Amino acid sequence: MPRPDRPGRSIVLVGMPGAGKSAIGRRLAARFGLPFLDADTEIENAAGLTIAEIFARYGEAHFRDGERRVISRIAAGPPAVLATGGGAYADARTRQALREAGAVTLWLRADIPVLKRRIAGRTHRPLFTGRDPEDVLRGLMQARYPFYAEADIVLDCGEDTPEVTTIRAERAIAAWQPPSRLPVALSANAYEVVIGRGLLPRAGGLLAPHLPSRRVAIVSDAAVAALHLPTLRAGLAEAGFEIRAEVTVPPGEGSKRLPMLEEVLEAILAAGADRGTAVIALGGGVVGDLAGFAAAVALRGLPFVQIPTTLLAQVDSSVGGKTGVNLRAGKNLAGAFHQPRIVLADTDALSTLPARELRAGWGEVAKHGLLQGPLWDWCEAQGPAAMAGDPDALRHAVLESCRLKAGVVVADEKEEAAEGGRALLNLGHTFAHALEAECGYDGSLLHGEAVAVGLGLAASLSARLGHCAQEWPGRVMEHLAAVGLPARLGDLPRGFSAEALIGRMRKDKKVRDGAMRFVLMRGAGGAFTTSDVPPEVVAALLRDEGAAA
Amino acid sequence: MPRPDRPGRSIVLVGMPGAGKSAIGRRLAARFGLPFLDADTEIENAAGLTIAEIFARYGEAHFRDGERRVISRIAAGPPAVLATGGGAYADARTRQALREAGAVTLWLRADIPVLKRRIAGRTHRPLFTGRDPEDVLRGLMQARYPFYAEADIVLDCGEDTPEVTTIRAERAIAAWQPPSRLPVALSANAYEVVIGRGLLPRAGGLLAPHLPSRRVAIVSDAAVAALHLPTLRAGLAEAGFEIRAEVTVPPGEGSKRLPMLEEVLEAILAAGADRGTAVIALGGGVVGDLAGFAAAVALRGLPFVQIPTTLLAQVDSSVGGKTGVNLRAGKNLAGAFHQPRIVLADTDALSTLPARELRAGWGEVAKHGLLQGPLWDWCEAQGPAAMAGDPDALRHAVLESCRLKAGVVVADEKEEAAEGGRALLNLGHTFAHALEAECGYDGSLLHGEAVAVGLGLAASLSARLGHCAQEWPGRVMEHLAAVGLPARLGDLPRGFSAEALIGRMRKDKKVRDGAMRFVLMRGAGGAFTTSDVPPEVVAALLRDEGAAA
Repeated sequence: MPRPDRPGRSIVLVGMPGAGKSAIGRRLAARFGLPFLDADTEIENAAGLTIAEIFARYGEAHFRDGERRVISRIAAGPPAVLATGGGAYADARTRQALREAGAVTLWLRADIPVLKRRIAGRTHRPLFTGRDPEDVLRGLMQARYPFYAEADIVLDCGEDTPEVTTIRAERAIAAWQPPSRLPVALSANAYEVVIGRGLLPRAGGLLAPHLPSRRVAIVSDAAVAALHLPTLRAGLAEAGFEIRAEVTVPPGEGSKRLPMLEEVLEAILAAGADRGTAVIALGGGVVGDLAGFAAAVALRGLPFVQIPTTLLAQVDSSVGGKTGVNLRAGKNLAGAFHQPRIVLADTDALSTLPARELRAGWGEVAKHGLLQGPLWDWCEAQGPAAMAGDPDALRHAVLESCRLKAGVVVADEKEEAAEGGRALLNLGHTFAHALEAECGYDGSLLHGEAVAVGLGLAASLSARLGHCAQEWPGRVMEHLAAVGLPARLGDLPRGFSAEALIGRMRKDKKVRDGAMRFVLMRGAGGAFTTSDVPPEVVAALLRDEGAAA
Repeated sequence: MPRPDRPGRSIVLVGMPGAGKSAIGRRLAARFGLPFLDADTEIENAAGLTIAEIFARYGEAHFRDGERRVISRIAAGPPAVLATGGGAYADARTRQALREAGAVTLWLRADIPVLKRRIAGRTHRPLFTGRDPEDVLRGLMQARYPFYAEADIVLDCGEDTPEVTTIRAERAIAAWQPPSRLPVALSANAYEVVIGRGLLPRAGGLLAPHLPSRRVAIVSDAAVAALHLPTLRAGLAEAGFEIRAEVTVPPGEGSKRLPMLEEVLEAILAAGADRGTAVIALGGGVVGDLAGFAAAVALRGLPFVQIPTTLLAQVDSSVGGKTGVNLRAGKNLAGAFHQPRIVLADTDALSTLPARELRAGWGEVAKHGLLQGPLWDWCEAQGPAAMAGDPDALRHAVLESCRLKAGVVVADEKEEAAEGGRALLNLGHTFAHALEAECGYDGSLLHGEAVAVGLGLAASLSARLGHCAQEWPGRVMEHLAAVGLPARLGDLPRGFSAEALIGRMRKDKKVRDGAMRFVLMRGAGGAFTTSDVPPEVVAALLRDEGAAA
């Protein structure tokens, strides 16, 4: 077997005594052509004392300080393979130092019988002296596994020989793709959107560094819960999370109402949520908006986590902090700005989406493309591959959509800009909201589908008003059709009246002083807000697109 | 008649052409022994041009700039009586300059027939040339009255001679007590608590400078609305406010629920509230908490105004930004921090309060006294006078309570301090919440009454634990009894079980890690938070105070 690519960063092995950190570490180092270091040895060398002596003379806190310094120094230096003492990674600041140094952490997980056999011959371990090794191991596991779970990679060693485990470790490291981490750099509430595959099974380790406690309440809908809740539960359990409440609401827009908010709140609080308990939204936009609003108002504000499972939620609604419910008086009229502590966008979840929902999410991706510029060209090139389920294309779509949205949100968190700002995210939405309202939110027209038709209309309107080249409407519609989205009014299975649609647009909550408000485009990357659109031009456009007079 | 006291600040007369600003101004100046200045003349002198020439040559915007500079200069100088041109006070920045200079503004209000007669002889006014004077006057009134309404004093002149109006103006100025303005200096949401008499009839003028528009929605309860809504309506109408919605909920704690929040939100939004529409809470703590929560979530946040009409709300709940509703799981478990733009505490409203409610409010005043120190001595001296309705005592109680609370809130807006901070405001409340919960919020025990008993118990507990002098429990209870409040368990008309009360206290949402959390005192002005109170000491105290074992 050829020597594998030498990793560009240090590999840090964590795990219980007897898990094989030194044995595997030495072999891995040899195969990668990297130096091998044992943290305990380095500490002893630095202190001129054995670890037992440091413990005895200065106590554990002193030892952990030194251990953290030594490990941070090694991780910040040239790449190496580093075996750590069993307690090192249980120290929060050591974990943080390793994260910040960009080291790859690998947890060698082994069962009690294996560990017990391996440590049987070691008489020098003070932890085990005079005690039943199995009891000691169980106690250590309980205390440390929640922290080991924050390692980047988990490798179950079983009964494998060190040689076999080494090869498996090497493969796991080569296969490991760190999730993309996109910062949303809000001044008061900065957070990250973590995007990648296999995040749900590792949710506990990914969330723990960003939450005040390991107590959570999960809000989901029945359809999503059936698919993903068991995985999330296991992912949280791995890191020792306590799930205080699981609330499942019926799928669909009908759950975004105040009585449902009340049910969610009662369930969360009856279960004993305190100010440190985080609310996790597991689902699409409806669940995210509802659970986020519940988190915003429960005890006047609980930490909040978004785990979006639809493309629409991953590229749009989970980022930006808008939460809320619908009223009879209109959509999203009651709510709060409540930023999540972290967003986990597991693109594996997209493989379970019905094709129509996946396509609908692309409506917002295409919108982000038009707002951003180069992303539009990428959409045209890769959109069909993404709709065919290509994981790299989906990951790129989510990452770049979130990057565009995060930039807009950071510049105008609470939508207070007089022109441009967050309002630009409504490209296509003046039309889309009117179409959705006409359809009555009965599921016959999905939001993303309405946005797609709205994008076509916005491009057409921009061209008619001379803001963009005449080729744009055709180009936009062609791309939408290529990914299977409705691109114009005539693609929808029902008719509309121009007058009714304009009536809806005049009542849009973005209306100022009675004038309809549009986002128009000069081209991809050139959107702008305006209230200066003659209603008769809109009416003519709608009629030409097939709406009844 | 003796010469009246010369005012320490300038008197500025505003009003329509023909209202008599110069005629009254000259006479007032003579009586006060102050110089008289006419703004128009000063402007003409400064410019070396007539006003007609300035308008013709440079336009109105230029004239208003110069007018504002001249008026600001005069107002900032030694006291004088200043007559302004009719359009001066309609300029927002001129009004602001006069407010900041501390001038007393007096609006001379006269009817159209009077104005028409007085301007009949004036041929030099370009405004009236070639037009029907009555039409011109009506147009000016409509445009300017909303701004004139921001003057400190309104004087209706009727058919009075200038001499009579002058004497009435002099008396109005002498009688005028500016309301107290207490700043709540939050870094992001600074606002003022305005405290005084006769604020409701002037609400429009007092609110206008602090709101983005003159559109409001009023939330009240049926009992308060019957007493005060007509006055508020008139006070808002005077300043040209448009009341988009009036929502009246049933009085009492039962209205602090999510279904009622939904009704309020639907009513406000169906009436067309936009992001500039302010929500006004007119009422006690229930209305303030409910309306404030509605304002916090409607369109993800509308401007909010507190007009508290109970002593409890004026001294406590209207300041600090806590809003919310009760859940089945507990009181105030859903809500938001949403600071008002301004609080109007009209102490005249207290005269309509049932005596028991007035007394209950004193429970929080006494608490503030104990937290503050010198205010406690004042409470002992003046509490009975306040309970007898003495306006000065009530005003002082409200002002100093708000001052204490504002200081605490500014230091710890969102109750995040580990020790002390906002939690200190819970002096007596660990007991009070348990007593209220046992009584089931059925109105048999008012919150302020529970707080009073709680203060007695907190003082007793502090003394038992050796934190304060042994005289304190007696002193606290004696004062509470002197104002007619229950001061100890035995004063309440029902019995309690020590075990049940402690059970409630252990479930208080302030509980951390299962330990009951108390605010104790070393004396007046020496409160502190602690979780270090042995439950058996609390149990013994409750039994000694008459609770069943």
